[in-house]
Amino acid sequence: MLDHISKNGKENSGEIKAEIKSLRGKLLAQEMLLREKGLPVIVLVEGWAAAGKGSLINELISEIDPRFYNVVSPVVLPEKEERYPYLYQYAAAIPENGKIMFYDSGWMEGAVRKYLKRDITKEEYKQRIRAVNEFERQLRDGGYLILKLFLHISQEEQEKRLSALKENYETEWRVNDEDVWQHREYKAFADTYNEFMEKTDGFIPWHVLNGEHKRSSVRDALKLLVELIDKGLDKGRYVGKPFAEEFPLLKMQKLSEVDLSLIIEEEEYRDKLKALQKRLAELHNTIYRKKIPVILCYEGWDAAGKGGNIRRVARPLDPRGFDVVPIASPEPHELNRQYLWRFWTRLPRSGHVCIFDRTWYGRVMVERIEGFCKEEDWKRAYQEINEFERQLTDWGAVVLKFWIQIDQETQLARFNDRQATPEKQWKLTEEDWRNREKWPQYEEAVNEMLQKTSTENAPWYIIESNDKKYARIKTLKIVVNALEKACEQHILG
Amino acid sequence: MLDHISKNGKENSGEIKAEIKSLRGKLLAQEMLLREKGLPVIVLVEGWAAAGKGSLINELISEIDPRFYNVVSPVVLPEKEERYPYLYQYAAAIPENGKIMFYDSGWMEGAVRKYLKRDITKEEYKQRIRAVNEFERQLRDGGYLILKLFLHISQEEQEKRLSALKENYETEWRVNDEDVWQHREYKAFADTYNEFMEKTDGFIPWHVLNGEHKRSSVRDALKLLVELIDKGLDKGRYVGKPFAEEFPLLKMQKLSEVDLSLIIEEEEYRDKLKALQKRLAELHNTIYRKKIPVILCYEGWDAAGKGGNIRRVARPLDPRGFDVVPIASPEPHELNRQYLWRFWTRLPRSGHVCIFDRTWYGRVMVERIEGFCKEEDWKRAYQEINEFERQLTDWGAVVLKFWIQIDQETQLARFNDRQATPEKQWKLTEEDWRNREKWPQYEEAVNEMLQKTSTENAPWYIIESNDKKYARIKTLKIVVNALEKACEQHILG
Repeated sequence: MLDHISKNGKENSGEIKAEIKSLRGKLLAQEMLLREKGLPVIVLVEGWAAAGKGSLINELISEIDPRFYNVVSPVVLPEKEERYPYLYQYAAAIPENGKIMFYDSGWMEGAVRKYLKRDITKEEYKQRIRAVNEFERQLRDGGYLILKLFLHISQEEQEKRLSALKENYETEWRVNDEDVWQHREYKAFADTYNEFMEKTDGFIPWHVLNGEHKRSSVRDALKLLVELIDKGLDKGRYVGKPFAEEFPLLKMQKLSEVDLSLIIEEEEYRDKLKALQKRLAELHNTIYRKKIPVILCYEGWDAAGKGGNIRRVARPLDPRGFDVVPIASPEPHELNRQYLWRFWTRLPRSGHVCIFDRTWYGRVMVERIEGFCKEEDWKRAYQEINEFERQLTDWGAVVLKFWIQIDQETQLARFNDRQATPEKQWKLTEEDWRNREKWPQYEEAVNEMLQKTSTENAPWYIIESNDKKYARIKTLKIVVNALEKACEQHILG
Repeated sequence: MLDHISKNGKENSGEIKAEIKSLRGKLLAQEMLLREKGLPVIVLVEGWAAAGKGSLINELISEIDPRFYNVVSPVVLPEKEERYPYLYQYAAAIPENGKIMFYDSGWMEGAVRKYLKRDITKEEYKQRIRAVNEFERQLRDGGYLILKLFLHISQEEQEKRLSALKENYETEWRVNDEDVWQHREYKAFADTYNEFMEKTDGFIPWHVLNGEHKRSSVRDALKLLVELIDKGLDKGRYVGKPFAEEFPLLKMQKLSEVDLSLIIEEEEYRDKLKALQKRLAELHNTIYRKKIPVILCYEGWDAAGKGGNIRRVARPLDPRGFDVVPIASPEPHELNRQYLWRFWTRLPRSGHVCIFDRTWYGRVMVERIEGFCKEEDWKRAYQEINEFERQLTDWGAVVLKFWIQIDQETQLARFNDRQATPEKQWKLTEEDWRNREKWPQYEEAVNEMLQKTSTENAPWYIIESNDKKYARIKTLKIVVNALEKACEQHILG
């Protein structure tokens, strides 16, 4: 890609100035329409050190009302200090509807630099390229307009600029070791940038700008941005053939086939509970030391026993190393962003356990059934969720998903019990009764979800919970086994 | 305080067990009531290394539904890595209404350890003690129930425990250099803990627990917690004589005295704008290098010209180093916490500039006038806000507050212009017209606010903005002067 940049011949600087002025005027008018239509825009500015990324962004935003944009400058930490998955900081910074977010370098730099530093392996680097394609496509499909720019300068030009910065006492600090290293390894960087851009050009195209001609690069960037927004305002969100990748899926039972007569005797329950919790406490220690992230997902019928189950799993954990995250209806600032955003921002640090009490699967259950999203949205979500979870397990996370299953009679009995017991009444709402009436629709949705999203890396487990004690022991066993496996692999790896 | 701990004589362990069981049952019942009444609870657990803080917390939470509590373990970073004000991480973690937050060590450790390390001066240490009193009192007055525990063990006991941990391969990693250092400096720590607790005992009392008797300390902690919640459920939020400290206040004009005829000629405007922006760009560089945090607060009448003013100030700033934060009506999760929380969590990192487009002063303007809070709440807020801002300037921040002033005729003309101009229509809402009708009430509230919260460290500036250009130049001058002063002082300091 870097070869194809035109060294654009001499242009008339007065003309360029006039073009920039006119483009800025257009952008200003678009601002209001973006707001009205609630369209979010992402502008990724990658490029060489000293190519002028910051000053390009400055020129792009100069006329925009500061309430409508933000700039983030993601930090590339050494891998061992990185406590979150690769895309975390980029995903956490996506704009809300109607706003523009400028990334002053981003996910390309985060992958390329670490790869060249051998901070990540070739395999991990490939995973990151895949994750980027998934991330960008999901945002595009979610209605985001995305512009990807690369600001290019030659090695000679970079040499000149770095020297000039270093010579001046006031600007000397701007040149760091990383920049010097990049300059020395210019060729390797160029090859890797090229490769990265070629492999992430399919869903959202890259645009290489000539950073040696500042004014024309500003003009070109403005033009691309104005065109992108125009198209978005005109056509609305991207609609196309949905992308589908075959994920190797585990065969799942249908809910109607689940044996809900399974029970455990009181004495056996007590013994096993004690032994499993003891083991889990030990494993939590190891998880913490080895910095393995653990994500436990709970879904299930109302009154299935999620709360008590979670409490038994949480009990032996060191409270400094886990969080229970209850997921309720999204708040306005959450609805104003892609639906996975509120889960991205709640992910645990490596070495910590996060227990989600309800999850992103709301997309294909309640949002599907209540019509909170369009049919195409929840249909696309199976693929998106599988990708999201693969990014988590690529990061090294243990991801386990539990469907807590009961039958309708048991639910009714528990509802009645809740109603009759003062200290349990808060657990029962009108909505629970309404949901109960939609049991068949939910059952269909749950069955489809279990079939389409139980992957080897992030499997579903159906937990028979007519007997809550049986359910707790089964869940604990699965957690303990999975953590033992993860701890062993981590030693070998 | 540490002297007064009873070495409680032999107690019957069966009795203690029974007491613990009964207390846990009570706590369980309180949980629902806390939820119903929306009362938030803070439990601060401070104490010696190896005193068993984590395991005490574990015992306290063992029966609570995980959806109703959280545990945070604040990190004490070396001062030079600390990019936020002292209380930031503690303030950011306060629970929402109806929930309990356990702090596994907190603001005492954050002050004492740094003081003993000479990471902060005696003066800064005193400021922190004052800040803690302010922080705790503000939360109490805001309806928070607060329990402060110190888990005490003797130096001999600490020696034993640290040695035992170090001898075991599985637990060795739990003893870090900081712990070893604390053990060596036990006496100095004891004195400083003592001093800190004595000086922060006035609003919310400390309770020292004997960490050498695990079971009885659990019983004691549970008892204190249950009593605190009982009292809170019974009496509701704290009501008492409001605390009042004399802040040295700057004399402010009344709005009616402001000379709104001030204007600037076009040519002078252009020249000054250019020169001031150039200077501001240079200063931003210095601010960034010297890690000085800058907080600019904008308040003013609708259509006074805040947006355009902010844009002129933001224009020369490096977009990587500033943020404009528009403040709208609080969202549900913000309403569920003390009103300053949503500002604490939006503070800039040191070296960054944060421009608040509307601020925490909403408390004494819109919330006062629309009755969104009680009279006692907004009356108390002047004091609370002065304290909050002093904590920011103690941190080293430059805090400047601008009231953008116009008269009613000018507002009307601008409203009419907005209505007539399609690309400005979004700026005008029904609410603006409604607010306009309440001009006299607002003027009274603004006058009171300006009189009561213009401090030397965080002054108000009234910006005459019938001529927007005049207003921009005046604002830029104030910002440039203040930053120049801050940069100079920082060299000397």
